[in-house]
Order: sequence, then C-alpha cells, then structure tokens
Amino acid sequence: MRLIESIREMTAWSKEQVREGRTVGFVPTMGYLHEGHLTLMRRAREACDRVVVSIFVNPLQFGAGEDYEEYPRDLTRDSRLAESAGVDVLFAPAVREMYPKGYHTFVDVERLTEGLCGASRPGHFRGVTTVVCKLFNIVRPDVAYFGQKDAQQLAIIRRMTEDLNLPVSVVGVPIVREADGLAMSSRNVYLSPEERQAALVLSKALARARDLVESGERDAARLRQTITETITAEPLAAIDYVSIVDNRFIQPVDTLAGDCLIALAVRIGKTRLIDNMVVEV
Amino acid sequence: MRLIESIREMTAWSKEQVREGRTVGFVPTMGYLHEGHLTLMRRAREACDRVVVSIFVNPLQFGAGEDYEEYPRDLTRDSRLAESAGVDVLFAPAVREMYPKGYHTFVDVERLTEGLCGASRPGHFRGVTTVVCKLFNIVRPDVAYFGQKDAQQLAIIRRMTEDLNLPVSVVGVPIVREADGLAMSSRNVYLSPEERQAALVLSKALARARDLVESGERDAARLRQTITETITAEPLAAIDYVSIVDNRFIQPVDTLAGDCLIALAVRIGKTRLIDNMVVEV
Repeated sequence: MRLIESIREMTAWSKEQVREGRTVGFVPTMGYLHEGHLTLMRRAREACDRVVVSIFVNPLQFGAGEDYEEYPRDLTRDSRLAESAGVDVLFAPAVREMYPKGYHTFVDVERLTEGLCGASRPGHFRGVTTVVCKLFNIVRPDVAYFGQKDAQQLAIIRRMTEDLNLPVSVVGVPIVREADGLAMSSRNVYLSPEERQAALVLSKALARARDLVESGERDAARLRQTITETITAEPLAAIDYVSIVDNRFIQPVDTLAGDCLIALAVRIGKTRLIDNMVVEV
Repeated sequence: MRLIESIREMTAWSKEQVREGRTVGFVPTMGYLHEGHLTLMRRAREACDRVVVSIFVNPLQFGAGEDYEEYPRDLTRDSRLAESAGVDVLFAPAVREMYPKGYHTFVDVERLTEGLCGASRPGHFRGVTTVVCKLFNIVRPDVAYFGQKDAQQLAIIRRMTEDLNLPVSVVGVPIVREADGLAMSSRNVYLSPEERQAALVLSKALARARDLVESGERDAARLRQTITETITAEPLAAIDYVSIVDNRFIQPVDTLAGDCLIALAVRIGKTRLIDNMVVEV
C-alpha cells in the first residue's frame, strides 16, 4: 500500500489509472477507521481494479465549539487496517495542502442541507460537499462508497454529484453495527462505559419505529412520538432531532410514502451520536 | 462538426477522447459568436487534438431585470462560424438539461466576486462558476479558453479551478477589439449608431490611463480620476464602476504594483458594457 500526502502525487497516480483504463474505487474518511469503513473498503476492493482511501479530518465541516481538535487520529493504526482491507493507496493530505492560503471556493447544496444535522451544525454540509468535490477531482474515482450511517450526507453527495455532473457513481452501504445494535462511529470512543450502555437507546428507538411501520403505522407524528418517548426514558440522553423525511430531498413528511428516512441525533453526555433507518413503504 | 444537445451524449464523447488519449480544448460561450470567440477557438484548434465549443445562455448568471430574454441567439449562424474555425463539437444543451427539476447545487467563489461586476450583479458569478464547473465535468477538457475581456470572470474561474482541483488548464486570451478600439461583445448589437460611437469612450479612457502608467503614474486614485473624467465627458455614458485591483484576488489597490487590473463598466443608453486592461508594473 502506498501512502500519498501531496495532491500533485495523487493526481499523477489518478491520471495513470485513467490512461491504463483501470477502474478506481474510493472511500473518503476522516480516519480512525472502524468496521464500517472497512466494509466500504471491501466493497470497493471487490468491484474495482484499484482502491483509494482518503484520511482527512476536514476542518471546514466542523463548527466553532465542535470536536475538530479532539477528533481521534491514528494514522499508523489506520494504515495497518486499510492495508489489511486490500487498499492500494492511502491519501492523507495536510490541511494546508487541501486549503492553501488564498483558498476561496465552496460548494453548496441547498434545501437538502437545511434540516436534520444541517440545522444544528450550520456550515457542516458546505464543508462536506466542498471537500468531497475536491477529493473526487483529485482521486478521479469511478465509484465512491459512503456509509448509510450519514444518511443526509449521502443524499447531499448524491445530489451534488448529479447536479455538478461529476463522473462518479455514488454507492451507499448499509450501517454496520456493534453486536448490541450501536451504529459504528469514530466518535463512540468518546463514550464512558455508562454512556456506551445508554447509547443503545438510539438503535432501540429505531427498532421500535420499525416494528410500528411493519404493523402498518404510516403517521410520521406518531412514529416520532414513540421514538421521542423511548429516548427521553434514558436519563443520559438528550434529543437533538428526531426527523422523518423523504430520502431524496430530505424534506419532512407527514405520512410515510415511498423511500423515507427516519433519522435521529442524540447527545449522550457530551457526545453527539446519529443513527437512522430507511423505510420503503 | 457534430452538434450535441444531451449531457449523456457529450459525456460519452468526452470519455472516448480520454480513452483514446486525445487532448480536448474547450471554449464555453453564450453564443452569438464574434471575432473574440473565434480567436479562442483558433487558439484551441492550434493546441489540442479536439475542440469543443459550448453555447448556453445560462439563466443562473442573469439577475432579475437583466437581459436574459433579449440576449441575442442564433444557433444556425453560430454553427457555421464554429465549423469555419475548425470546431469538432458544438455542445448546445437546453436549460432543463443543465438544470433539471430538483437541481440544488451551487459553486461559490468568495472575496474575488465581491467587487466590480459582482457588486452590481449579485449572484452573477455564482451562476458563472456553477455552470463552468458543470461544463468542465461534462466536457472534461485539458485546456479551457476564456477571454480577458471578462477579466474578473477569468480570475474567478482560475481560482475555482485551482481550489476545486479541477484537472483543467485555464488560458486567458487578450481582448479582441473592433478597428476603432471597441472591445468585441455580443451585447454590442444592442447599440444604436449614436451609442456605438459613444461606446468608444471605454477604450479611450483606458488608453489615457495606459499613457499615464507608461509615463510613471502609480497612484490608483489619480488614474481612476482620469478615466472617470474621460467617461463623464460623454453625455450618453453613465459609469457603473471604475476599479483598479490586483489581478489575482481582485482586491482594490491604492498604488499600482505587480499585476493590476484596471476595469470599468459603463452604461451606454440601456446597454452595459465592460472593458479592462492589465498593467504589469
């Protein structure tokens, strides 16, 4: 596995793959890799001639007072894990390499970014779309893999890719969970043992909603109420949002129809966790 | 010469050029071609294996009350002219092809877009950068050619291309003028014979400023004053702006140093014309 830190070197590598007619699969990450990321890498490994993983803790997608500084980083461990998943190139640029002095360009997706995480993290998705657009141009993948865990992010990246005519197939991969149901996240390391237990309330609330949907419930307000009640029963949990939206434009729905997304963000102590479930009715 | 109207067909063509290792030169235009555009096409023809010209009157870069509806259009004439310049593909998508229902993504360049035309045409450059980003992704050129006539636009597109790591060389081509000095523009057709004569005041004012710079003047305020006096002496002319900025970040300068841009926008009757001059001191 090759470690590349400069854009120039990464671009040269990408150009060579195009010239040689090789397909490139790409997994953009912020590092501190877990089984969720590794699943994306394996998917890329199966489908593509070459696999690139980027590790970049993107300052642009963190707001003031968020955890940019504390976000866990361990490039040595990440390198080992990526190599074990059959990755060909680990692209790990410095911040100044991605945003040099005089940097002034931003990519915005409107409407889809307004609610859910966009409401509580203003500017977050602008940071995400800008860095993903840059990474797509640098790595030039044929296919890019994103976790369904960040469902709103996935819808926004699909939208951007289609709107800007980026020649990349965006593939969403189902959430990978711990044995007890907790969605995998690099931020799970922030949790104390007690909080780790309390964090199960997210997947538990979603499971209850799924049961209701399966027994015929289509009313978004009643589903939200069940989820809210489940979460508020946990003393360590504080709801940021519980939203039911269409899965394409991320707009609130009153009644479930077509592809809907039930998404939640909950603070467990100081740690903000998200989880979601797509329901097709 | 091939006329392509669908993005799918254009993308397939571009992909084939990449596969065959052919270089592509690209000239994005709003059509109603004049000698300025043809000069760009000839430059592309000399340097590249294939030449693509796009014709798209981009609604996104026109403000409310601007001339989107009246903007001159003549695809038959444009096709003939492009073919005579050795163009291989004319890409002329419909508005709904470029901005389908549910379109939500925009590219913004900050700071460089604030002054000059950005101040009097809010949203204009957002429209320009968004459409150029899309066109670059669809056409996948190695080199793209832009007229120096739209100097601020050129600086903004250079900035966007560098910031978003778009794999395109952006080439600026000097202003092409009529024999009497008027910078070529598709909007010159709006001018009555009397206005056409009055419009010479733009290039005349710039010529006076050049004389002053050549005789050692470096003070931006005094240069602006000379330009302003020259233009206001013309009864049909009304100044929109007279600006002296650095040519990279388009920020006002007090004293000429390095690469500076002297740029002006003037209304002649109802027609807004721009002209400029780059001075290297």
